[in-house]
Amino acid sequence: MALLVQKYGGSSLGTLERIKHVAGKILTAKQQGHQVVVVVSAMQGETDRLIQLCNNLTTDPNPREYDILVATGEQVSMSLLAIALNAKECPARSYTGPQIGVQTDSVHTQARILNVKTETILNDLAEGYVVIIAGFQGVNERGDTTTLGRGGSDTTAVAIAAALNAEECQIYTDVEGVFTTDPRVVPHASLLPQISFEEMLEMASLGAKVLQMRSVELACKHNLPIRVLSTFSNHPGTLVTFEDKIMQRRLVSGIAFSREEAIIAINGVPNRAGIEGQILGLVSDANIEIDMIAQNATDKDSNDFTFTLHRKDFPKTLKIVQQFAEELGASVKSNTKVAKLSLVGIGMRSHSGVASKMFQALGGEGINIQMITTSEIKISVVIDEESLERGVHAVHTAFELDKIPSEKKHSLMEA
Amino acid sequence: MALLVQKYGGSSLGTLERIKHVAGKILTAKQQGHQVVVVVSAMQGETDRLIQLCNNLTTDPNPREYDILVATGEQVSMSLLAIALNAKECPARSYTGPQIGVQTDSVHTQARILNVKTETILNDLAEGYVVIIAGFQGVNERGDTTTLGRGGSDTTAVAIAAALNAEECQIYTDVEGVFTTDPRVVPHASLLPQISFEEMLEMASLGAKVLQMRSVELACKHNLPIRVLSTFSNHPGTLVTFEDKIMQRRLVSGIAFSREEAIIAINGVPNRAGIEGQILGLVSDANIEIDMIAQNATDKDSNDFTFTLHRKDFPKTLKIVQQFAEELGASVKSNTKVAKLSLVGIGMRSHSGVASKMFQALGGEGINIQMITTSEIKISVVIDEESLERGVHAVHTAFELDKIPSEKKHSLMEA
Repeated sequence: MALLVQKYGGSSLGTLERIKHVAGKILTAKQQGHQVVVVVSAMQGETDRLIQLCNNLTTDPNPREYDILVATGEQVSMSLLAIALNAKECPARSYTGPQIGVQTDSVHTQARILNVKTETILNDLAEGYVVIIAGFQGVNERGDTTTLGRGGSDTTAVAIAAALNAEECQIYTDVEGVFTTDPRVVPHASLLPQISFEEMLEMASLGAKVLQMRSVELACKHNLPIRVLSTFSNHPGTLVTFEDKIMQRRLVSGIAFSREEAIIAINGVPNRAGIEGQILGLVSDANIEIDMIAQNATDKDSNDFTFTLHRKDFPKTLKIVQQFAEELGASVKSNTKVAKLSLVGIGMRSHSGVASKMFQALGGEGINIQMITTSEIKISVVIDEESLERGVHAVHTAFELDKIPSEKKHSLMEA
Repeated sequence: MALLVQKYGGSSLGTLERIKHVAGKILTAKQQGHQVVVVVSAMQGETDRLIQLCNNLTTDPNPREYDILVATGEQVSMSLLAIALNAKECPARSYTGPQIGVQTDSVHTQARILNVKTETILNDLAEGYVVIIAGFQGVNERGDTTTLGRGGSDTTAVAIAAALNAEECQIYTDVEGVFTTDPRVVPHASLLPQISFEEMLEMASLGAKVLQMRSVELACKHNLPIRVLSTFSNHPGTLVTFEDKIMQRRLVSGIAFSREEAIIAINGVPNRAGIEGQILGLVSDANIEIDMIAQNATDKDSNDFTFTLHRKDFPKTLKIVQQFAEELGASVKSNTKVAKLSLVGIGMRSHSGVASKMFQALGGEGINIQMITTSEIKISVVIDEESLERGVHAVHTAFELDKIPSEKKHSLMEA
């Protein structure tokens, strides 16, 4: 018997049939003797419907009012799930974030959780109830409803699991877990039975999109394992946990990638202190986020300075950079048809040769690398977008990522 | 300058265009120097959509969960209206019933308001905000969201207006006010400039459906005038107030009617104490509500006992009554094609001749009266349903109800 926190996403609750299916899964866990706290997202499409209503009134809604509007999405799914459970003779009570006491700061639409009250949850669990909580929302000091931003239900689930000292936080979604890379690109990608928090953060930030970044950070901070698993199968999924808890050490864990990238290179930047800060300052003043940054010294007087950014921001950024380069007498090269490919793995910390193996795999396919950046557990390269899929396949095969054995059912899921 | 409580119904908020229109009306009142508190219903169709979702899961939903589900309807309309007002540079804050402190008992789906906290409302008004409150909902002692039952937003508005000591409670709807009878039946029906609380209660209970009964009772109890008026015109509507405040005394104020009635008569009921109670006891044990009751002594040993009820309950009721009558040796007559027509007016208290004038009008049309009941300010008759429209016309003309003069704009509405 354990205290489980289960989070169900919007696609898991997208129809009344799916809500009944989720109620069945919760009932099974209950019948196995577990205490269950459930965190829900809004039914698929509902949040977008509400935002659409709002946007048709104004493009710049009052944020306090926007928050209490979109918070209705989870209020609907939580009560429908509670109705479905009660109809199955499984006593359940649902609560909004404000009702249960998910206390946040006052940054509407992007609030952060400060504290979670556990009294009501613990009382209800002790009385045999399943407790269902609306994700994505909380309440500020003034009593106003706040929301956490897109994907915030994962964070709610982790915060509640941490406050309750749950054994693990189970994030139910429409995929079986975290794969070595996107199975739509590499059909024989492996499901990772385990992955470290650090690797997960690198995978998520690179577009793996299985878990919200902030929820992974929060779980890491609270020593709380997260399990990512599918609502629609009984597979044990992927456990996101600490490096030292991972059974099968691997050199690399996966390949993340993102399209829609653009690259801008300034050649012949005078070798002068603070000049990189000036360039990036101009770009960030225009509210443009940049991604990778690399710099190479070409000779003792000048540098090549290269960065990537989302393709949507490219035209605006190029204009700024060209004007600046002109004043410096530097030249600008750019390419909007590029993609980023990143190899992630905690094993590369202690093993050399990962980079060379990766570059050889790409070279073997005749793929030219336009930019490289590295961190302790990640190597990222920029390549032509049209070579991306071939590149992912080549690196995936080189590191034998299609040969990761899957795990048996884990103990918490067994009857 | 006055403190106004305005309530807007679901049809007034049925589309985003209408929400913008309502925001414009509120802004006008604000610019005229009034302090405005707004109570909203859900957007037209939204509550039904939520109930449909719930009914597709189970026919017997947990009432606590049902309440928090349907309460989202008003939460959406209140925040959209606040967003629309803020977009017009009119500062507005919206609150759910639980947030503002509409405290109710714990009878889910049919809760009664016990108290309304005014602190937040008064603070916001003092700071220049329009305060928007979700109607139809409140919170019980445990912190659970409750709902007041269909039409409960009227009651919320009256309770808040009473708590704030507002000058009047304005109920905005899609009709111009209270008419002498249904204008769909009598196109030249007059709009009543004023009507007494007692008359309004009789009109409402008889199917006039402009205001929820409980809200009229509550307003009467708190000496609070209600104004019924249209969202889509500038007509001053109908003021529901105390008898002694009404300017133009009238003998009768209106004709209410309802179709879908059925009548059951038991002839030859033995003249025995308590026998009527036995009959009605059997019917109410089957959860059937009856409407009118009349009894006539035919001879010293037996009575004729007649009652009406909604047509949907007729088959079940007839079965019960027939079995009972058989045991008594009484005979049963029934008719499902009947309607009820009621003449309402405080003037009839002190004036005789109202009943005879009514019966003559019906007789003049060859309409047979099957049953009569009277109260101090109402005379109701049961007639064939196919004669209903002719009957309403005849009585309407006999009492010159098409000749009631309408009022000038009232002071609160003037610029």
